[in-house]
Amino acid sequence: MATNSPSSPVISVVGGTGALGGGLARRWAMAGLPVVIGSRDPAKAAAAAAELRAAFPAADLRGMGNLDAARAGAVVVLTVPFAHQRPTLEEIRPALAGKILVDTTVPLVPPKVARVQLPKEGSAAAIAQQIAGDAVSVVAAFHNVSADSLHADEPLDCDVLVVGNKVESREVVVGLARAAGLRAWHAGSLENAAAAEALTSVLIFMNKRYGGVHTGLRITGIPDDNR
Amino acid sequence: MATNSPSSPVISVVGGTGALGGGLARRWAMAGLPVVIGSRDPAKAAAAAAELRAAFPAADLRGMGNLDAARAGAVVVLTVPFAHQRPTLEEIRPALAGKILVDTTVPLVPPKVARVQLPKEGSAAAIAQQIAGDAVSVVAAFHNVSADSLHADEPLDCDVLVVGNKVESREVVVGLARAAGLRAWHAGSLENAAAAEALTSVLIFMNKRYGGVHTGLRITGIPDDNR
Repeated sequence: MATNSPSSPVISVVGGTGALGGGLARRWAMAGLPVVIGSRDPAKAAAAAAELRAAFPAADLRGMGNLDAARAGAVVVLTVPFAHQRPTLEEIRPALAGKILVDTTVPLVPPKVARVQLPKEGSAAAIAQQIAGDAVSVVAAFHNVSADSLHADEPLDCDVLVVGNKVESREVVVGLARAAGLRAWHAGSLENAAAAEALTSVLIFMNKRYGGVHTGLRITGIPDDNR
Repeated sequence: MATNSPSSPVISVVGGTGALGGGLARRWAMAGLPVVIGSRDPAKAAAAAAELRAAFPAADLRGMGNLDAARAGAVVVLTVPFAHQRPTLEEIRPALAGKILVDTTVPLVPPKVARVQLPKEGSAAAIAQQIAGDAVSVVAAFHNVSADSLHADEPLDCDVLVVGNKVESREVVVGLARAAGLRAWHAGSLENAAAAEALTSVLIFMNKRYGGVHTGLRITGIPDDNR
């Protein structure tokens, strides 16, 4: 386990009691990074933080309501279902100025979640940027990773495509993905979120078609010394 | 080299003198499948076919104009730039009824080809289906494979996502991709082309970002016995 450096930015996981958010919080706590778990229900967030502290006693973990969590973090990671993306962002917007917002939203439209149905804005990440405003550096990532695998403490056989308009912000998120045990890549400007978001429906389709497994993706063709 | 079975469907590669089309024609000729190369210029198509015959003397290869090529094939593979997709499809449409049309079009909008810019229809594949009409079974594939790698006769480190609304048509194209030396997967309905099309811009971005290499993708998490 890595030690918690005093310079580690606090990571707020808004929606952190859900499957993906909880899995990321677990991985970052395991890596020794300070984490704040946010939930609509502060008590649920506190309980999730307590549970992770029991597993990782050295971890710096707190739980609180989503807005307080967003205020507490230097990097805010949004991990709520697509239907909750807009109201949650509108709630936490006052806490986001000057920060990196990591949008993980996949615009799945039930019941046909194995079918790509990108929003008219182009991507969920574009919606996040519209709501958050220009003072927020939106980065999109973690669309394709299996939440189950994050919780299982297994090696993760899925790469993370990290998109955003500011290279320095992307670099922070590439580092967070690596701290969580994932291989991660700079994947271009925020519009490119459409690729990663759409790919999730493909992976859901393939999970069904090929037998209920957790499919993922690997980027090939990059020499070891360029990684 | 596989032998050319009398039951092999003739594959027409419309735009087959281009980089991707030429690479696929080469791979299928190498595998012993009958191939017709189509081009706007019939002489150019004939020359390309003659060149491949010199490399693979046993191959069943012809070259002709795009419409004649489309008439000659049981499976028609469209490999033209996005800007030529519509006029080419309008030209060959009379030859497509009852056939499988494999659309490989990636909706790149120069000069920003490393930025995802999907069309308002959702994908280039959706445009192909609109133009071709309901009597044509559109399958989209081969968006992410490097044309250079197809020509180089190297092992191909990139999977093919095969999308389309008819499973039997997808299965034919999965078989063609495998004959070309590629690992290929059923990836869902035609709307899911958006994922593969968008991913090409991500790979173009990564080629630049990570040093001019041919990036590709691999799907992970599928057990060997489900492949």
